[in-house]
Amino acid sequence: MNDISSKVLKGDPRAIARLITLAEDNNPIATKAMKKLHPHTGHAHVIGITGVMGSGKSTLISELTRIYRKKGKTVGILAIDPTSPFSGGALLGDRIRMMELAMDEGVFIRSLGTRGMLGGLASAVYDVVEIFDASGKDIIFVETVGVGQAEVDVIKIADTTLVIIVPGLGDSIQTLKAGIMEIADIYAVNKADRAGVNQTVAEVQSLVEITCSDKERKTPILETIAKEKKGIVELVDEIIKHKKLLEKTKKLEPHRRKRYQAELIEIIRKRLMNFVFDESTFKEKVEPLIDKIANKKLDPYTAAEEILSRILK
Amino acid sequence: MNDISSKVLKGDPRAIARLITLAEDNNPIATKAMKKLHPHTGHAHVIGITGVMGSGKSTLISELTRIYRKKGKTVGILAIDPTSPFSGGALLGDRIRMMELAMDEGVFIRSLGTRGMLGGLASAVYDVVEIFDASGKDIIFVETVGVGQAEVDVIKIADTTLVIIVPGLGDSIQTLKAGIMEIADIYAVNKADRAGVNQTVAEVQSLVEITCSDKERKTPILETIAKEKKGIVELVDEIIKHKKLLEKTKKLEPHRRKRYQAELIEIIRKRLMNFVFDESTFKEKVEPLIDKIANKKLDPYTAAEEILSRILK
Repeated sequence: MNDISSKVLKGDPRAIARLITLAEDNNPIATKAMKKLHPHTGHAHVIGITGVMGSGKSTLISELTRIYRKKGKTVGILAIDPTSPFSGGALLGDRIRMMELAMDEGVFIRSLGTRGMLGGLASAVYDVVEIFDASGKDIIFVETVGVGQAEVDVIKIADTTLVIIVPGLGDSIQTLKAGIMEIADIYAVNKADRAGVNQTVAEVQSLVEITCSDKERKTPILETIAKEKKGIVELVDEIIKHKKLLEKTKKLEPHRRKRYQAELIEIIRKRLMNFVFDESTFKEKVEPLIDKIANKKLDPYTAAEEILSRILK
Repeated sequence: MNDISSKVLKGDPRAIARLITLAEDNNPIATKAMKKLHPHTGHAHVIGITGVMGSGKSTLISELTRIYRKKGKTVGILAIDPTSPFSGGALLGDRIRMMELAMDEGVFIRSLGTRGMLGGLASAVYDVVEIFDASGKDIIFVETVGVGQAEVDVIKIADTTLVIIVPGLGDSIQTLKAGIMEIADIYAVNKADRAGVNQTVAEVQSLVEITCSDKERKTPILETIAKEKKGIVELVDEIIKHKKLLEKTKKLEPHRRKRYQAELIEIIRKRLMNFVFDESTFKEKVEPLIDKIANKKLDPYTAAEEILSRILK
C-alpha cells in the first residue's frame, strides 16, 4: 500500500481512483501519500468552470477536453455539482459524450458529493486537484454550480475561472451580481444560438465595464455553442492566453499561495473537527451536552468552552 | 454594557441591533450576553424561506409578516441572501414595502452578509435567531437563496421550511432535485398568475409523490401571488398547522436538538479557527509556512500537523 503515491506519480488510473477514495474517507494512508505527492505538483493548469444548472457546463468541458487532447494534453475532470452528468445524473446524449471521454486514457473523470455534518468538501477538492496534478495531468477542470458561498469558495482553487452564462436565463445575470463577478477570468455565453444572445452579451459587457478592476485586461466574453462544437477552439485559446498572462504578470504564484493558504486552513479545520467530534465518541461526549442545552440548563457557548478546555493547551 | 442581555429580553430594538453587531464581530461581550439569553429561548417559531433569486421571497415574507402582525404576533426577519431587498439591494416597490415593515415596532429586520476566510455565517445565524427569540419575537423568518450547500445547511435551523417555486423558471425544479427537496415542509408556487403554473404545480406534486417519506403528511403545495396578497392567509394557516403537527407528533424537540447540535459544532469550529488563525498573529505564524508550501519544501498536511501540535493537548 505504501507505494500508492509512486503509482499515482506514474499516472496509474487505478491508483489515482483509490487514493481519491482514501482521501475522501480521511484515511491516514491518504495523508501519507498526499505528503509525498506535494513536491510533484504545480505543473497543471487548474481551470474552474461555473454556471447555473442547464448552462451546459459538462458539454462545454467535454468539448474543451477534446481540444486539449488534440493538443496532446492530458486532462483531469472534477465535478462537484451532484447534478452534473459527470456525476452520473445524465441524459442519454450526455452519457455517450461522457463515455467517449471515459474511454480515453488521457482523461480522468471524478465527481465528489457533499460530505457529512462536519463539512469537508473543500478539503477533498484540494486533494483531488493535487492528486491529478501529481499524476501528470496537464489540465484540470473543476466543475461547480456557481451559486452558493461554498461553491464560490471552492472555485477559488482554479488558476483560471470560466463563468458560463446562457441567453434568456434571467437568473444568470442576477447570479453574477451576487458574487461570481469577482472571480470570473473569462465569460462564455453558451447556447449562443438561443434568442436573446446579443442582449445577454451586452448585459455581461456592461457588468464587466462597471466591475472589472484590472486595467490591463477586460474580462473577455466569448460566444459558444458547445453542442455544435462552435467557439470552443477560441475559448481554449483564451484560457491559454490567461494562463500566460498570469505567468507574465507574476500573478500565478501569489494566486497559488492563496490556494495553499485556503488549503492549509481547510486541513486544520477538518483535523480539529474530526479530533473534537470523533464519530465513535460523538454520542457519549456530545449527547449529554445537547440534552442540557435543550433543557436550558446549559447554553451552547458554555458547552463549547467545556469541550475546548479539554483539548486545547 | 453588562445589561445588554436584560435590554434584549425586554425587546429593546437598539439593544437587539447592538448585540447582533457584537456577535458578528465575535466580541466577548456578545458571548456573555448569549449565555444569559439562552434560557429564555425556545418560544419562537422559526420559519425558513428559500427559493431562487426572483422567486419573490422578500415580498412573500412581507405579506406573511403582515398577516402574523394582524394576529398580534411580533416578527423577526433575518435575510442571509446578500441580494435580498431586506439587505438593501431593492427595487423601489420593494423598498416601500420594506419601509412599511421597518416602521412597525413589532417587526425587526436584519440582514447578514457572508464573512471572511474562516467562514462563520452559520454561527451568526444561530446567534441572531437566539437573540430574536429571547427578545420575545413570536415568529422568526430566515430568508436564504436555496441553492448552495452552505445555504441549505443554514436553513436547517428552521422549525418549518418553506420552499418557493416560480412557474416557468426551469431552474426551480432542477434546484429542488439537487437537495432542497428533503428539507421542504411546505411548497409555495409563487407568482401563480404566470403562464405554466399548472405544469409547475404538477411537477412539484410528482416530485413530492416520489420523494416524500412521511406517510402521515404529504408536503402541501400552495399557490400564491404575493404581490397581490393572494394565497397568503392560506399559507400562514399551513405554516401554523405544520408547527402544531411538530408539537403533536413530538418532532419539535428532536428537531431543535439537531439545531443545538449544529450550533454547538459551529461555535466550536469558529472558536478553534479563531484560536489557530488569530488575525493579529496570522501573518507571522502562517505566512512562513505558506512560503515553504509554495516552494515545495513543505506540504500542507505536515504544515497543518505542526500548527496543531502546538495547540492541542
